[in-house]
Amino acid sequence: MNLLPSTLSFSSVRTHLPILAAATDAGTADDALVLAGVLLSLAVIYFTSKLGGEICLRLNLPPVLGELIGGVAIGVSALKLLVFPEGSADAGDSLLMQFLQATSALTPEGSQSVFAVQSEVISLLSELGVVILLFEIGLESDLKELIRVGPQAALVAVVGVVTPFALGTAGLVYLFHVPVIPSVFAGAALTATSIGITAKVLSEIDRLNSTEGQIIIGAAVLDDVLGIIVLAVVASLVKTGEIEISNVIYLIISAGVFLIGAILLGRFLIPFFIRLVDTMKTRGQLLLASLVFAYILSYTAQVIQLEAILGAFAAGLVLAETEKREELAEQIIPVADILVPIFFVCVGAKTDLSVLNPTVPSNREGLILAVFLMVVAIIGKVVTGWSVFGQPGINRLAIGIGMIPRGEVGLVFLGVGSASGALSKPTEAAIIMMVILTTFLAPPLLRIVFGTAETVPTVEEAATEAVEATRKQ
Amino acid sequence: MNLLPSTLSFSSVRTHLPILAAATDAGTADDALVLAGVLLSLAVIYFTSKLGGEICLRLNLPPVLGELIGGVAIGVSALKLLVFPEGSADAGDSLLMQFLQATSALTPEGSQSVFAVQSEVISLLSELGVVILLFEIGLESDLKELIRVGPQAALVAVVGVVTPFALGTAGLVYLFHVPVIPSVFAGAALTATSIGITAKVLSEIDRLNSTEGQIIIGAAVLDDVLGIIVLAVVASLVKTGEIEISNVIYLIISAGVFLIGAILLGRFLIPFFIRLVDTMKTRGQLLLASLVFAYILSYTAQVIQLEAILGAFAAGLVLAETEKREELAEQIIPVADILVPIFFVCVGAKTDLSVLNPTVPSNREGLILAVFLMVVAIIGKVVTGWSVFGQPGINRLAIGIGMIPRGEVGLVFLGVGSASGALSKPTEAAIIMMVILTTFLAPPLLRIVFGTAETVPTVEEAATEAVEATRKQ
Repeated sequence: MNLLPSTLSFSSVRTHLPILAAATDAGTADDALVLAGVLLSLAVIYFTSKLGGEICLRLNLPPVLGELIGGVAIGVSALKLLVFPEGSADAGDSLLMQFLQATSALTPEGSQSVFAVQSEVISLLSELGVVILLFEIGLESDLKELIRVGPQAALVAVVGVVTPFALGTAGLVYLFHVPVIPSVFAGAALTATSIGITAKVLSEIDRLNSTEGQIIIGAAVLDDVLGIIVLAVVASLVKTGEIEISNVIYLIISAGVFLIGAILLGRFLIPFFIRLVDTMKTRGQLLLASLVFAYILSYTAQVIQLEAILGAFAAGLVLAETEKREELAEQIIPVADILVPIFFVCVGAKTDLSVLNPTVPSNREGLILAVFLMVVAIIGKVVTGWSVFGQPGINRLAIGIGMIPRGEVGLVFLGVGSASGALSKPTEAAIIMMVILTTFLAPPLLRIVFGTAETVPTVEEAATEAVEATRKQ
Repeated sequence: MNLLPSTLSFSSVRTHLPILAAATDAGTADDALVLAGVLLSLAVIYFTSKLGGEICLRLNLPPVLGELIGGVAIGVSALKLLVFPEGSADAGDSLLMQFLQATSALTPEGSQSVFAVQSEVISLLSELGVVILLFEIGLESDLKELIRVGPQAALVAVVGVVTPFALGTAGLVYLFHVPVIPSVFAGAALTATSIGITAKVLSEIDRLNSTEGQIIIGAAVLDDVLGIIVLAVVASLVKTGEIEISNVIYLIISAGVFLIGAILLGRFLIPFFIRLVDTMKTRGQLLLASLVFAYILSYTAQVIQLEAILGAFAAGLVLAETEKREELAEQIIPVADILVPIFFVCVGAKTDLSVLNPTVPSNREGLILAVFLMVVAIIGKVVTGWSVFGQPGINRLAIGIGMIPRGEVGLVFLGVGSASGALSKPTEAAIIMMVILTTFLAPPLLRIVFGTAETVPTVEEAATEAVEATRKQ
């Protein structure tokens, strides 16, 4: 209580007067220009996501693929409008920052700090985007159906981790004579499944609540947990040469306790939650109360070394069980609309396609490895469909293909492997190509195997269907 | 195109694996923990905004006042849950960061960078919040009505700048023998009007589209422009001892050209915009296309040294003229619900109430000055109501009171004055108190003078009214 007036903060306040911002704080990034940069980035991201989405829809491809490809087009691989300050990229490499410099009072020196802060903000918004996406997926999922298909989903997840890991590691060691450690890393990268991409496509083609859809979602969620464990094992193997059993056990127990605990606790608390929301009268009461719940679970998952998206998914699942489901699902749509595209466009923008260029001689060894990894990546996941038992008439191919995209999760393995110094350039390039191709191939394949390529519902049709579905209940 | 694979970015990607994040990048803030910190901050902010809002609503006070007071309660003045790294505050001063340290693997050293990045992100979200708020206000405003009341609004704005500036500066110099430069700064701080707070209250009591409401909004928008000009004049006076006429002329012309140009250009482009949106079929097409438009205008306003919120307001005004108004207004509600409270809670959290403590002797001189400034602040704005001409039966007191809150705009003046070193501690404290009191006093006063204190519409009533209003059209 004894802070002097001079400690009052003017950071948010400086932004109101660009012209004088420099006078109040010359040392740090100019907040007014950071805001300008963020606004411009968001305008570019939204434009790209809609342009890509609309084009793909007209080509009978999933809109999310258009967002990814749009991201690639404006990202580090092509236009360099949206680049991030990792690796060797700096403000000078970003066309968007150059535009900001050309149109504002920003100096080349100042632009480095504006670039850094703006990139942090956009990255964080994209992470919030995937949190909201998984919350929405949870809200659209059916907990009872998920529990019913639980055993099948668990088997799909385990088969989808063991098969590509074993095939990939053994193949690299015996066929290509790659050393063991990088082979293990490449094998580990093959185990990932990007729940975000598959779930988004399933939602787009209205198959999220099919039995196949729920098995895929359940397996992808478990795969996320398994992926964390595999990565912990591999990383400790690289660092110490042995596996820290205690850490592996900790992760398995905490993941189990968290998911079951969140759902049980949630169900217990939900009646109080609904009663509380019903007594509230200010604007946005249901949405904000639900997000408080979702963010607390996400926070908890994140700090116990799981992932924020697991918490968001659990929160969505719990709230889906309540009478507020429809109202909340409707309110979350615009929120997801403004945040989720940031995630997909950023994933695309951060993807470096230059490793696919066969005219660069140093890429060739990687390309050969990549072909092998691709084959393993597809076979290793497609077989999972045949591990499903007790579901006659199920579309096994669809389940297998739903597990194919590695997306950002595959890149995590690469990131850790790359930082450990264990990977050679060709192996690294091969993993990147495998991640890129599985990510971009799975969405159109998924549509084809679900037989929906010819009958893409438009927004209006989907809305009509949703309303009809509601009435039937 | 020749970036090597090792330059691939893993920043977003690191966040997926908190346990291994440190391995990939030890130098910068741990993104996984930044995400955890942001999620926790947002949960706290939402909880606070709803608790404060609900309590105020039950006391027949405007909910936005509850959000401000809630912000004060969790901010630097009281609980220190949400503090910002300006002045002398660091991660150790933030209870939220201490909680994050206690619950995660965060080290005290790492917490400084996490604190810095997380605070930047929350500050930027709060700025996006006020951009969205002004977009929504623009969307709810009636351009024809605004133009109709334009002359009155302009007069109100000018009177509301000249009167408090003249009274305040002269009073400080002649009655209190304060030197000229700090007196001019204090006078300048008296000219501000916080459009955010007034507009939010008007919207809450459903008076935004009354003649009074539109005069207040028009005057507050113009006051924002005048404020920028006054501040530019005062700052150049302090720096060089003379007024840079060229800069003043530039600001006046650019503001005029921007506002009129944006509206004219917008009207010209709108038919194409609507046709484009109608051909789009992917989710969120109207919302994202509108936000691209709003963000581009905001960006433009920001880089030509006006304010982003002016661009957002102009974009809202233009889109309000279209047939998509209702649909867009409905979709923007959840977006505003999740962003706008961040702004109000942050304004509260950054307000340091310790200067109001009369038991601290050094506060007393400031308190006396503050009483004088408060009187001038209220009189100087209340008189503006009587400058309205040709509107018989108008509620003049309501207009005057609507112009009272200085809010964040008043703090900008303080920030610039403080940085220039021209202000003594008592003068600084007095300005802070004036800003705090006008900001917190205006919302309840506004309700009283509009005679709505007894008939606060609940969310449901407001929604019903809105639906009825739509049907009547």
